[in-house]
Amino acid sequence: MTDTETRTSADENEQTFPDGRIFDIDPWTVTWRGDDLDEMDRTESVFALANGHVGLRGTFEEGEPVVQPGSYLNGFYEEHELPYAEGGYGYPESGQTVVNVTDGKVIRLLVEDEPLDLRYGKVIDHVRTLDLRSGTLRRHVIWVSPTGRAVRITSERFVSFTERSIAAIRYAVEPVDGRNVKVVIQSDLLANEPVAKPEDGDPRRAAALDAPLVADFAAAEGMRAVLVHHTRQSEIRVAVGMDHELVAPHVTDRNGDHDPERCSIEAQDDLARLTISTTIPEGQKLELTKYLGYGWSARRSVPALRAQADAALALAKDTGFDELLASQRHFLDSFWEACDVEITGDAELQQATRFALFQVLQAGARGETRAIPAKGLTGPGYDGHAFWDTESFVLPFLTYNVPLAAEQALRWRHSTLDKARQRAHELGQAGAMFPWRSINGDECSSYWPAGTAAVHIGADIARAVAQYVNATGDDEFEAECGVELLAETARMWAAMGHHDSDGRFRIDGVTGPDEYSAVADNNTFTNLMAQRNLEDAVSSCRRNPEVASALGVSDDELQTWEKCASSMTVPFNEVLQVHEQSEAFTKLAPWNLHGTPAEHYPLLMHYPYYDLYRKQVVKQADLVLALYMRGDAFTADEKKRNLHYYEPLTVRDSSLSACCQGIVAAEVGYMDLAFDYFVETALTDLHDLHRNVSNGLHVAAMAGTWLSCVAGFGGMRDYDGNITFAPRMHPALGTLTFRLTVRGSTIRVSMTEFEATYDLLAGKPIDLAHHGEQFTLDGDTVIKSIPELDPGPAPAQPPHRPPYRRPSPR
Amino acid sequence: MTDTETRTSADENEQTFPDGRIFDIDPWTVTWRGDDLDEMDRTESVFALANGHVGLRGTFEEGEPVVQPGSYLNGFYEEHELPYAEGGYGYPESGQTVVNVTDGKVIRLLVEDEPLDLRYGKVIDHVRTLDLRSGTLRRHVIWVSPTGRAVRITSERFVSFTERSIAAIRYAVEPVDGRNVKVVIQSDLLANEPVAKPEDGDPRRAAALDAPLVADFAAAEGMRAVLVHHTRQSEIRVAVGMDHELVAPHVTDRNGDHDPERCSIEAQDDLARLTISTTIPEGQKLELTKYLGYGWSARRSVPALRAQADAALALAKDTGFDELLASQRHFLDSFWEACDVEITGDAELQQATRFALFQVLQAGARGETRAIPAKGLTGPGYDGHAFWDTESFVLPFLTYNVPLAAEQALRWRHSTLDKARQRAHELGQAGAMFPWRSINGDECSSYWPAGTAAVHIGADIARAVAQYVNATGDDEFEAECGVELLAETARMWAAMGHHDSDGRFRIDGVTGPDEYSAVADNNTFTNLMAQRNLEDAVSSCRRNPEVASALGVSDDELQTWEKCASSMTVPFNEVLQVHEQSEAFTKLAPWNLHGTPAEHYPLLMHYPYYDLYRKQVVKQADLVLALYMRGDAFTADEKKRNLHYYEPLTVRDSSLSACCQGIVAAEVGYMDLAFDYFVETALTDLHDLHRNVSNGLHVAAMAGTWLSCVAGFGGMRDYDGNITFAPRMHPALGTLTFRLTVRGSTIRVSMTEFEATYDLLAGKPIDLAHHGEQFTLDGDTVIKSIPELDPGPAPAQPPHRPPYRRPSPR
Repeated sequence: MTDTETRTSADENEQTFPDGRIFDIDPWTVTWRGDDLDEMDRTESVFALANGHVGLRGTFEEGEPVVQPGSYLNGFYEEHELPYAEGGYGYPESGQTVVNVTDGKVIRLLVEDEPLDLRYGKVIDHVRTLDLRSGTLRRHVIWVSPTGRAVRITSERFVSFTERSIAAIRYAVEPVDGRNVKVVIQSDLLANEPVAKPEDGDPRRAAALDAPLVADFAAAEGMRAVLVHHTRQSEIRVAVGMDHELVAPHVTDRNGDHDPERCSIEAQDDLARLTISTTIPEGQKLELTKYLGYGWSARRSVPALRAQADAALALAKDTGFDELLASQRHFLDSFWEACDVEITGDAELQQATRFALFQVLQAGARGETRAIPAKGLTGPGYDGHAFWDTESFVLPFLTYNVPLAAEQALRWRHSTLDKARQRAHELGQAGAMFPWRSINGDECSSYWPAGTAAVHIGADIARAVAQYVNATGDDEFEAECGVELLAETARMWAAMGHHDSDGRFRIDGVTGPDEYSAVADNNTFTNLMAQRNLEDAVSSCRRNPEVASALGVSDDELQTWEKCASSMTVPFNEVLQVHEQSEAFTKLAPWNLHGTPAEHYPLLMHYPYYDLYRKQVVKQADLVLALYMRGDAFTADEKKRNLHYYEPLTVRDSSLSACCQGIVAAEVGYMDLAFDYFVETALTDLHDLHRNVSNGLHVAAMAGTWLSCVAGFGGMRDYDGNITFAPRMHPALGTLTFRLTVRGSTIRVSMTEFEATYDLLAGKPIDLAHHGEQFTLDGDTVIKSIPELDPGPAPAQPPHRPPYRRPSPR
Repeated sequence: MTDTETRTSADENEQTFPDGRIFDIDPWTVTWRGDDLDEMDRTESVFALANGHVGLRGTFEEGEPVVQPGSYLNGFYEEHELPYAEGGYGYPESGQTVVNVTDGKVIRLLVEDEPLDLRYGKVIDHVRTLDLRSGTLRRHVIWVSPTGRAVRITSERFVSFTERSIAAIRYAVEPVDGRNVKVVIQSDLLANEPVAKPEDGDPRRAAALDAPLVADFAAAEGMRAVLVHHTRQSEIRVAVGMDHELVAPHVTDRNGDHDPERCSIEAQDDLARLTISTTIPEGQKLELTKYLGYGWSARRSVPALRAQADAALALAKDTGFDELLASQRHFLDSFWEACDVEITGDAELQQATRFALFQVLQAGARGETRAIPAKGLTGPGYDGHAFWDTESFVLPFLTYNVPLAAEQALRWRHSTLDKARQRAHELGQAGAMFPWRSINGDECSSYWPAGTAAVHIGADIARAVAQYVNATGDDEFEAECGVELLAETARMWAAMGHHDSDGRFRIDGVTGPDEYSAVADNNTFTNLMAQRNLEDAVSSCRRNPEVASALGVSDDELQTWEKCASSMTVPFNEVLQVHEQSEAFTKLAPWNLHGTPAEHYPLLMHYPYYDLYRKQVVKQADLVLALYMRGDAFTADEKKRNLHYYEPLTVRDSSLSACCQGIVAAEVGYMDLAFDYFVETALTDLHDLHRNVSNGLHVAAMAGTWLSCVAGFGGMRDYDGNITFAPRMHPALGTLTFRLTVRGSTIRVSMTEFEATYDLLAGKPIDLAHHGEQFTLDGDTVIKSIPELDPGPAPAQPPHRPPYRRPSPR
């Protein structure tokens, strides 16, 4: 995963991030008071609404100005040829890219023939608010047209969490200059909008994004219209429908009757349009409610998809906007009740943390049978692909908070097993090899050293499976999917590695999480994750002997896996007394960090892989990630020494890094550093720290915000399925409270700098541990003090790369 | 360099090559008796004529049937964009591909309106002969047209070694059925012929090859015509002219005068044509002599290039065909006198060896200021690029036989130094980094792990420089070019490597010669070649202190280079007592050679790099090549143990491998194996062992044929500039005699199984060694016996991959 983030700085001792704060600080809302259209690209992503199934970017209703329009449907993509100047056996031939489907967000307004466009006329007031409790985006505009007419526009929209194929917008216009105003409203379904092209210059991908939809069908009647299209190469078909309710008491003819002439609808090819022409009397308002319904499939016919969109619209209209809104609120109330994280000491971090949880929910809530992309459904970044981000960052949150969503995400992986088996076969391996990046389960990574070679994704998936099964006790899932996922990945490891002459099990020529290294031997993270994968596969097969038998797993195979796991190579430098990121990593030349100017970050944009790979420079937590995810394989002293070794080499050119570094810093006891990394993680998107939020949100960093709280400050670990805590707080946070649900028991943990309070909110009593001390949490509140720890001075970061510090005042 | 060779076999104990013998065996000619047009693709390359400047494939004069027409001018290429689905910093943006320029070979014949085409009518006789002493391609055809008319066509053509911009064809027709015959002859210059497209599917490169020439100018007068074109992207301009002499006594009008109506010429855009329409009386023949002249440049104008082609034609016509032919013969007589290799015991190997020497001469003789491509000027393979093949395989032959050509090739490299310095800068390195593949000096390799990372090319060039300077004593070249080439490559090594905590100098993350490994640490070949590079740079700078000073080389820098060289890491496995190809190579899993079916070779066409790189499988000699090129760094025991270790892992999927393996086999004493590899090397193209000779000859393998004789059986080494021999013969060769010239002294070495005879043919007495015994060779013949050696059983090759064995009878 190639993050193309840019940061600048002049002084290598100073922090290098921009002052990125543009939103009001509030515990439950994110508000932008928009007088600077240059910030619009950021708001389009931050204000995106999604439910994991359908996603709508936060563009203005009037369509323009716009940076990247975007209506995304999970699993809806176009294919394009992947070009290679020098090809190779096993290179993927076909790429996939998410496409902007028919846009139903558009409601244009003409005020006496002057189109509402904030670049013209005068904006008196413009406020947009994402409400994390109602799950809606509200807008309030007072605009004076170039001809001097003043109108107020208000809108509220949402993508329904409860009815996953439905979105709705309520849109109101009223004159505010004491006079009647003549308006025309055009509510559109618009296919093949121009989109901003990726800048990487691949003409095939650009071509796939250029007018990707071929018109199949268009119909309009009354206030309802539907357009059906399909993509050229992937041949996926989509139906998008709109229906409306109009409250405009004075849209009447001279006789006082409803005037059909002034409300018309039409549809053809790439455009369906409801046009309302009317005069709004002074003191009154026109209110248009627009419902959107979606249906898409690679198999279903035009009539079937049209029917699906129509049915969604019928359901929406029958339910009604207010009722849908109430359901949305109810859904979110339940979510916050079970999953909220409260921070008393820092209002901005409180807001950012809730924003993060909300965005992970938007990415994963209703992704049923489909992947959770790295950007969710908020932008076209990374082509809409899913990576290891899903299993390693997003699923831990979902597993402990929205387990049904976690299960569905893992069932999606399971549904791609045949492709993964085929890929393993194609690459001369055994078992299943999952794609590094994909929408439909086929590998789309065209640069194999940082794609196919990153085989750790198999173990990342296996860890998510084991974690989910442990946390939920979902035996049915385990029998139906879990055993097979664990066994097929275990088979991959057993076949991929080999025992050397000393009997140690080696896994050579692979790429770990750090993308400034590649194709190295015995990557510690990969080997330890593979070890756990093998062990978990053995356990799962032993728990499900019939399933294992049906998969052809014999006792001999289990013993093979056990032997591979028990003899796994974990490279260690005895002189330095640190673990090697990969074998011989510590013998490589250091990167000249002091000679690297601030404007040369991210390094991959300014230096060749050839040089990055052969030096000790780390893009993102790799060995340090192993210290967290396989912390049971390291002593406390080793963790501290390793962190001190790798922290000064880690440039954090990936948004996946800071939360991992912060979690380990908290465990070792460097609370200031942990706090700083938490700030950087939580504000990744709200402060646009990587200057690319317009491509979509960094969903893994949002999930990493939760991990920072729970695994970082809370010290929560679940090695072997036992839930343990080792809370360690930073005083600036005041009180930090989080909740999680384990096998039906909902726990609340509330921490200050000195003590942690454990409560069982629902479910059966549960065995926990606090700093190594076991206890059973039942109806009684348990309060434990936090032991003191003075680890000494924290390690330094590379020049120009200290953690983000917010502009003051907060 | 990616060789896409294919071999098949059923039984892994049997040799897997086809019976590829299609040419008559003769010591000085290569003759094809062509009744099988399916063999035509092979003859087009084998019968290609070239002088290093201009190359013409061995197509039929009548133009069709044809597989790949081809007229190539050294350094004449078209550019095309290099596509990347995922780009990276420092990736080359532009590729280069050799293009087929205006074809002057074409002389069409219509026999009573029936075009001569061997696919129609009846071929009574068809003989084509490449004559290695006259340097011409002769043809004799008796053809009966579909309407029953029998004619004899003879032709002889050459590309002049002495006048490098000139080629000529003498073409004769006569009736052989006792009747007058009415004929039309069309002699063409034909631009933008259709060519066979590369099969790799890159549309950009295919587009660059499709009608690459844009017409600038056309003129025709008398029997002379010229066409001027340029390429679209690279904007290189070419003028091709033709002129003719006609001997056709009966092409007269009714009054007995020459009839201008029946001999006409025209020229426009992509075609110039001389048309002769006449009746040839029974018993007489028409003889047309066609001269071709070429001029090309990226800078010169249309009139200047036209003048250049016209001047070449004037020179050709003034000199005349017979005189040009005599000069050609004289040039080759001198060549054979100084460079011939004689083999008495095996007529086919005698022929193949002379063919090989001739082809290396054709590739390099007159390449002045331009590169020597891997395929010479015989075909479009590898896009016409030059690789390390030039310096490592071709230049040793040229250095000891045609030193002026070696000097010119190295001066070409020197002329690209600014580009190489720029490339080093771009990649964050120092000094100069030469391209892995190029026509004009810019890197064209789009897959960096097997391109840019193969940094050994710098040391390969440095070795060729030092070898040339040692062998010729050319101080002027050293001062003008040699010091700078050595110093800039030494700077690269000093900056690229680093000293580890034990003070050892490491070069990490590079690719050695074996392309089934990549981006590994401390490749032994690379490190030892870099060591010699650094040492040679120090010596050369000390010999040329003023030049060194002008290059900014200080004493400190020389000491740095010395320290890097003296502390160079050479990885060795103490348990196995063998050297590592690269660090930890021997710890990798073995490739399952016994499970690899014959039809899965070459492996790169059937297995991913991902799996090849992480296993112990060797495409081509790498550590074994180090045993030869840096044999001074190994003991005899080490050479033997290393050969035994690596030989069973080496699948020889590259045509560069067999000669290197054979040289080391001969040194260790495995003479049957050395003989077998010599056979395979020498017959690479004549027997089409890689089934791709139609793309062009394997010039490095041809040069490897000479290396097999001289460095293999002759045991010639030139470490540190001292010429030593350690002859060791295979009895099947009878007597093997070769010549070479060192600092003006031409030596002849003649060997039998039991003794070697040394003679000084010209020049001053010279110090030599025979199996470690020093002696001075002056006017007296020196005869030395060859010591016996019984090294025991030779190592085995991988299943399906024994050396080629010829079909019997020889």
